[in-house]
Amino acid sequence: MDGRLSTWGWGYEERFPDRETRTLFGQQLRLITGFEISDIREPMILEGAQIPPSRIEAPAALAAISSTDPRERATRAMGRAYRDIVRGFHGDYGSAPDLVVSPTEEEHVRIALDWASENDCAVVPYGGGTSVVGGVELEDRDAFRGVMCLDLRAMDRLIELDPLSRAARIGAGATGPRIEAQLRSHSATLRFFPQSFEFATLGGWIATRAGGHFATLHTHIDDLVESVRMLTPRGVFESRRLPASGAGPSPDRLVLGSEGVLGVISEAWVRVRPRPVFRASASVRFVEWLDAVTATRAVVQSGLYPSNCRLLDKREAMLNRVAADGSNVLLLGFESADHPVEWQMERALAIASDFGGQCPDGPQYRSSPARESAGPDVRDGLAERWRQAFLDAPYLVNSMVSLGVIADTFETACTWDRFEALHAAVIRSTRDAMKRVAGKGMISCRFTHVYPDGPAPYFTFLAPAKRGSELSQWAEIKAAASEAIASNGGTITHHHAVGRMHRAHAQKQRPELFGEVLRAAKQTLDPRGILNPGALLSLG
Amino acid sequence: MDGRLSTWGWGYEERFPDRETRTLFGQQLRLITGFEISDIREPMILEGAQIPPSRIEAPAALAAISSTDPRERATRAMGRAYRDIVRGFHGDYGSAPDLVVSPTEEEHVRIALDWASENDCAVVPYGGGTSVVGGVELEDRDAFRGVMCLDLRAMDRLIELDPLSRAARIGAGATGPRIEAQLRSHSATLRFFPQSFEFATLGGWIATRAGGHFATLHTHIDDLVESVRMLTPRGVFESRRLPASGAGPSPDRLVLGSEGVLGVISEAWVRVRPRPVFRASASVRFVEWLDAVTATRAVVQSGLYPSNCRLLDKREAMLNRVAADGSNVLLLGFESADHPVEWQMERALAIASDFGGQCPDGPQYRSSPARESAGPDVRDGLAERWRQAFLDAPYLVNSMVSLGVIADTFETACTWDRFEALHAAVIRSTRDAMKRVAGKGMISCRFTHVYPDGPAPYFTFLAPAKRGSELSQWAEIKAAASEAIASNGGTITHHHAVGRMHRAHAQKQRPELFGEVLRAAKQTLDPRGILNPGALLSLG
Repeated sequence: MDGRLSTWGWGYEERFPDRETRTLFGQQLRLITGFEISDIREPMILEGAQIPPSRIEAPAALAAISSTDPRERATRAMGRAYRDIVRGFHGDYGSAPDLVVSPTEEEHVRIALDWASENDCAVVPYGGGTSVVGGVELEDRDAFRGVMCLDLRAMDRLIELDPLSRAARIGAGATGPRIEAQLRSHSATLRFFPQSFEFATLGGWIATRAGGHFATLHTHIDDLVESVRMLTPRGVFESRRLPASGAGPSPDRLVLGSEGVLGVISEAWVRVRPRPVFRASASVRFVEWLDAVTATRAVVQSGLYPSNCRLLDKREAMLNRVAADGSNVLLLGFESADHPVEWQMERALAIASDFGGQCPDGPQYRSSPARESAGPDVRDGLAERWRQAFLDAPYLVNSMVSLGVIADTFETACTWDRFEALHAAVIRSTRDAMKRVAGKGMISCRFTHVYPDGPAPYFTFLAPAKRGSELSQWAEIKAAASEAIASNGGTITHHHAVGRMHRAHAQKQRPELFGEVLRAAKQTLDPRGILNPGALLSLG
Repeated sequence: MDGRLSTWGWGYEERFPDRETRTLFGQQLRLITGFEISDIREPMILEGAQIPPSRIEAPAALAAISSTDPRERATRAMGRAYRDIVRGFHGDYGSAPDLVVSPTEEEHVRIALDWASENDCAVVPYGGGTSVVGGVELEDRDAFRGVMCLDLRAMDRLIELDPLSRAARIGAGATGPRIEAQLRSHSATLRFFPQSFEFATLGGWIATRAGGHFATLHTHIDDLVESVRMLTPRGVFESRRLPASGAGPSPDRLVLGSEGVLGVISEAWVRVRPRPVFRASASVRFVEWLDAVTATRAVVQSGLYPSNCRLLDKREAMLNRVAADGSNVLLLGFESADHPVEWQMERALAIASDFGGQCPDGPQYRSSPARESAGPDVRDGLAERWRQAFLDAPYLVNSMVSLGVIADTFETACTWDRFEALHAAVIRSTRDAMKRVAGKGMISCRFTHVYPDGPAPYFTFLAPAKRGSELSQWAEIKAAASEAIASNGGTITHHHAVGRMHRAHAQKQRPELFGEVLRAAKQTLDPRGILNPGALLSLG
């Protein structure tokens, strides 16, 4: 699908439902949540919006690939957190960059970094703009003479493929569909399907340590990166293609999670694979949440390595139309390009059954040559419904804002011994905060990824908005949730990154001396401090 | 087994064979290599050795745990590379530290670092002392007023176990057997069995990114570390226990491979597992080396994740008594605590067979409750012979030095597309160098670990020594091998670390700007530069 990207909301402008559809959605939502939903509003048109005038002009060498057009700047003013969509909906583009530069080659990036260094101009490396943590927006644009958005999406080519080693060299600006389309002609796939798949880019995934398709084993983009190339104000930082190395600390691991503050990722060698031929999927129902958690732990500790192992609590299962009977549902999947996966699925179901899991429809097996779809592609029954809901979910927030519903997600990871207390505390704190600021609210939990030593729980909350106070309501709920996570041994983020929103908690979470090392790394690579100022590391 | 550690050679003093046994070994060696072996020498006794007098005295607070005894200092003068064993054999302990401090608690380490910082004393964090890359030896001890060996082996306790998350908190000084003995009472195992297993320590493995038991998937200690605690001259650097996190670059990954130059690792949480119950092993013979390589690649790209997948070329197979018929041998193993592994083994054998692999004895299966052995424990047929040879191999070098044979190993990793050329170049260059300096020599290759995108080849070479010139002979061979690796896309080390021996190549291999970042990290954590000076990073 193609189209014009929304200036304010998630994804394509055309996907924003008409008023009638939103009315129907509001009625459904009221049935599920009990919220009063009557007041349906429309986003402010761009002509009435607040977009600060551009303060800078592109240098001549970049003029042909630069724009100061208000629409271009507004679209890239912020990420796509609930907080961002609310502001865009109300026409607040106060954080818009002064200039959008769209390099088509590395030389452009080099020129841009040189020019910005000399002109006290902040540079925000920009991929899909799908950050939900304030990753692409300066807090104080007046601290710089200008802010340049460096939009890398034109650097999106499959540059080289090594079929023997199953690795591909890909431009950092390639989006999910672009990566898959180019790999498909070589019968290869990256199989990295985060919720941002349609829009986010390889470079963005690397910079934020994004989480993808596989619920176990190769959960983060980290596991798929063979080497990276990053352009810094001090020059090129490029690691060698190696399957593994023990020669000191890994240079790749400094780039992974660097969130644009150390350099601009221009390309990477990533590990690809043949498209799966053998697939199994099943959904297992549990009456009791803690039984489902124990079963999920047993499956992930079995060494079976399911590709899908996502546990939805009963609210998630209902919201995602995976189960309407109040069950908690564990979605299991196995896939292989080499061998049938029946055996693994049967063993996983046997484990789940030991803890009361029921699989009334039985597992579904498919053995087929590679298909043509570019997206996540488990097509069977409930798993298919889950998949569709998964990709559509971010779009729902656009409608929620119109309907006056606060809707957000947050996520973490913790060891199994802490999970029960963390889960209870997060649910309680978030509910209490929603009650305080909105009178009511609902919160649900799923596991997006699981490890032998702990799960990655992902929470979704909904609360009725007070028009005009959405942002302060949201901020209080978010603060309560984050505090509950941090004080119960969870990480402030498993795969949403730090940006500016999670910065204070990330700072407390990491060893203080490691924070100093990160600052020293930034001072080394970006001595003028122009790169994505305020992301990951606080200023000054 | 216990005993007194050799001052000069690998392992226990008692394990050095008597003259008669060495004579027999020399005869066998002559049959295999064709080298003239007649001159059997004895190591210099310590009383005649050159051990520089201690220049410093322990501070009062550490007096009870310190020693300046010449034997204690000589034993820790260097690692156990061929180069080191030759020097020790000849009584050259010129690199001996001035002081050995053996902390039993973190407070001792803190005092030692403070005192050393104030007294211009270098500190070498010391575990098993099994480095083969000059990891524990200063090049210029006169650059400091003193050199302290900080021997961490008394900090070896299993401090805490979290059975739910399958993780254990262990003192960094614990050796392999000590770790397994403590975990066994909890029915758990780390299953990390490098060749240094008997002597090396958890902290040493983390500092050097050691490679262990598993030939695929969880190959390095990196994969088993959940969090680390490191004491630096600036204070404590401790990461949080998390199964995964996306909150910026990983602090653990700075510690992994830091080789004692950033801090002293005091403990770590590591991922443990139940002892395997189901095991399969097989040895597959190939007439042609490149067929064997292709088969190994196909197996590792299948997603079957064998625990053992070690390919020996015909010389390795012969030296290790795994095959005498000139076959190349792929040793395959699968293991699980949860489910039978017949299916995986059969699929792996079918893949191998597609490339001409023969398994005349068929696979062997065992299903048994956890056994009592603390070592690597595949006990079947050829695999067992391989295992014994694996653990004994480092001991052989002691005898080789006595018999006048140069014997060393080196290792790398590269992508599959580079392997054939790299292998040919390394064999050729090393043979040429051996011919130049020794008239003849033999070299063999095996894969210790394999990845979907490339193998980790490991080379062993033997050449006749000219008495008194061993070190210069060895240096020329080593230089030729290293150069061939570096110029053919290999890493200078896959799991032997950098130390001082690989430093120049590691420096060329890593991004230059990453080298600057490492220096900035060292400046941040160790501002006086007292920690293991010259390892990983050159001085000045």
